[in-house]
Amino acid sequence: MKQITIYDIARLANVSVATVSRVINGTAPVKHSTRERIEALIQQYQFQPNAMARSLLKKETGIIGIIVPDLTNPFYTEVLSGAEQEALTTGHTFLLTNSVGDYQKESQYLSIMREKRVDGMIFLGGRINLRNGNETLDQELIQHANTIPTVLINGTVKGNAITRVATDEYAGTCMAVQHLIDNGHEHIAFLGGEMHMSTTSNKLRAFKKTLKDAGLQVREEWILPDSFSIDSGRGLMHKLLELRKKPTAVMCINDFVAIGAIKTAVDHGLFIPDDMSIVGFDDIPLAHHFIPEITTVSQEANELGRTAIRVLQKLMNREKVKKHTVIEPKLMLRKSSAPFR
Amino acid sequence: MKQITIYDIARLANVSVATVSRVINGTAPVKHSTRERIEALIQQYQFQPNAMARSLLKKETGIIGIIVPDLTNPFYTEVLSGAEQEALTTGHTFLLTNSVGDYQKESQYLSIMREKRVDGMIFLGGRINLRNGNETLDQELIQHANTIPTVLINGTVKGNAITRVATDEYAGTCMAVQHLIDNGHEHIAFLGGEMHMSTTSNKLRAFKKTLKDAGLQVREEWILPDSFSIDSGRGLMHKLLELRKKPTAVMCINDFVAIGAIKTAVDHGLFIPDDMSIVGFDDIPLAHHFIPEITTVSQEANELGRTAIRVLQKLMNREKVKKHTVIEPKLMLRKSSAPFR
Repeated sequence: MKQITIYDIARLANVSVATVSRVINGTAPVKHSTRERIEALIQQYQFQPNAMARSLLKKETGIIGIIVPDLTNPFYTEVLSGAEQEALTTGHTFLLTNSVGDYQKESQYLSIMREKRVDGMIFLGGRINLRNGNETLDQELIQHANTIPTVLINGTVKGNAITRVATDEYAGTCMAVQHLIDNGHEHIAFLGGEMHMSTTSNKLRAFKKTLKDAGLQVREEWILPDSFSIDSGRGLMHKLLELRKKPTAVMCINDFVAIGAIKTAVDHGLFIPDDMSIVGFDDIPLAHHFIPEITTVSQEANELGRTAIRVLQKLMNREKVKKHTVIEPKLMLRKSSAPFR
Repeated sequence: MKQITIYDIARLANVSVATVSRVINGTAPVKHSTRERIEALIQQYQFQPNAMARSLLKKETGIIGIIVPDLTNPFYTEVLSGAEQEALTTGHTFLLTNSVGDYQKESQYLSIMREKRVDGMIFLGGRINLRNGNETLDQELIQHANTIPTVLINGTVKGNAITRVATDEYAGTCMAVQHLIDNGHEHIAFLGGEMHMSTTSNKLRAFKKTLKDAGLQVREEWILPDSFSIDSGRGLMHKLLELRKKPTAVMCINDFVAIGAIKTAVDHGLFIPDDMSIVGFDDIPLAHHFIPEITTVSQEANELGRTAIRVLQKLMNREKVKKHTVIEPKLMLRKSSAPFR
């Protein structure tokens, strides 16, 4: 039997959670027979009012709102897993909404979060990942964050006005590209991403800088943005293999693109990593189950989610927090990259 | 510019959605200056009250609650994708909660759904997938469904008391096993699943029946349940490869277990499908990107989600619906299965 909650007591007593809270805290009168029924249940289940009960007393809803852009990408569901584990410690539950990166949906969900009086909010993707930002969209979010404690994951708004937690994508990309260079690769391509998004421009800056620092040429025809999906990776590798001069190694915007790139390369008879090294980014769980296992940069997605909730909990408790918490990425050396032969 | 919604008008006018609704429908008086501000915005953005605005007029919240058991399994996120596309047609948005299959969390989320006055609810996993059901848990859900229109996906409760949409898992498993038999396999194992769950017992019944009908032996040491994860598939294939007598083909409870099984088999030097045929279930997007591409049974996850929402919309409109809608599965022949040599 798992620990019983105030919700269970309310349900079993057929009363609202507020009524149970009143009985526990003696904050307002409750009908005698109802009080007795609730007290009997509290006794029977040895109920200990936990953080959730306390927060309800403080007129909080116990709900954290989360806006994510793409539930079909395991990176986001890993972040959510970590966030969920951490939120359990204070008895918070999630109101999860999928924006599909659509700014209008984001606005709708922001309204819903306010309407439903969430205690705090986590925001991922969409408008906070725009390379050049958008004044109106940013202002809307900033206004929102002024009312409801809000933490952004891997993104920001104009003037860095909202508390954020982020992986150092720039450093992560440098590590991955340097790994390829250290393995003797001099001809390296960059696949995937969308140019108007900051994650793409950050990673691309790191890519170019690392090549230049090593005295290597940046070839524009090997920089192929498109999107973040497996299908995108498949299409981009097709393009790459049609070029007269081909690279010996490829840096991908994420693991999905890397999976697609490997798949197409293998379909064309290439051996990975013997004929071409391919590196991803994110370290989704599948990266170490794929054949070959994928060398990638871990964003520490689970830790990213946990950290965001820890920061949010402080914000909700009106404690002081750092405006910007950085998670250090890790290079995961696996089987999709090897020395240049 | 995407179509503007009642939420946008409310936000821009700095009033509640209800106020905008009152102005549009003239159902209650609104302060003159506020009315003028709202009307100007409606004019400016050429706002057409859509289904959502109409539903708000009917005192609906425009929100569908969804309880899912595992957001890290792409099968569920595919179902959600389909559901989301369909819900867009009536302007509904989702309140998504992740129960991790934990019955206590399910109860909490049911309370939250009621509290937040969702218009309808979709329930997946957890208690509705119990092989023998659970009287108390079922009763709680049935009570809930009496108040809020509810549709179950791939599961049921005692007496089939709640409207449900489901894939015919039994038929799907028969198709997959028959495909292996037709390819000359006589020694077939079954990997994954949990015995107390109905999806496992349904598929296992189909597995045994198909073998028996073909005059083949069911070997208990080749029936290895455990769970539904990739890691589970890896561990189970280890066990299988340690047996003195090994099967030539394997039916897996789902694609995750198939991916894990293939991975371990390949790590042990086996060629798939040459040395062993491995078949999955679900047809998650990754199944056709994996190396080798995985032969599997499509649950039509997207269609399952869409259908559930269509049925729910009818329920919410108090139209008559079938108590049980069945989605026919499809066998997807790919590269992880081949004739026995």
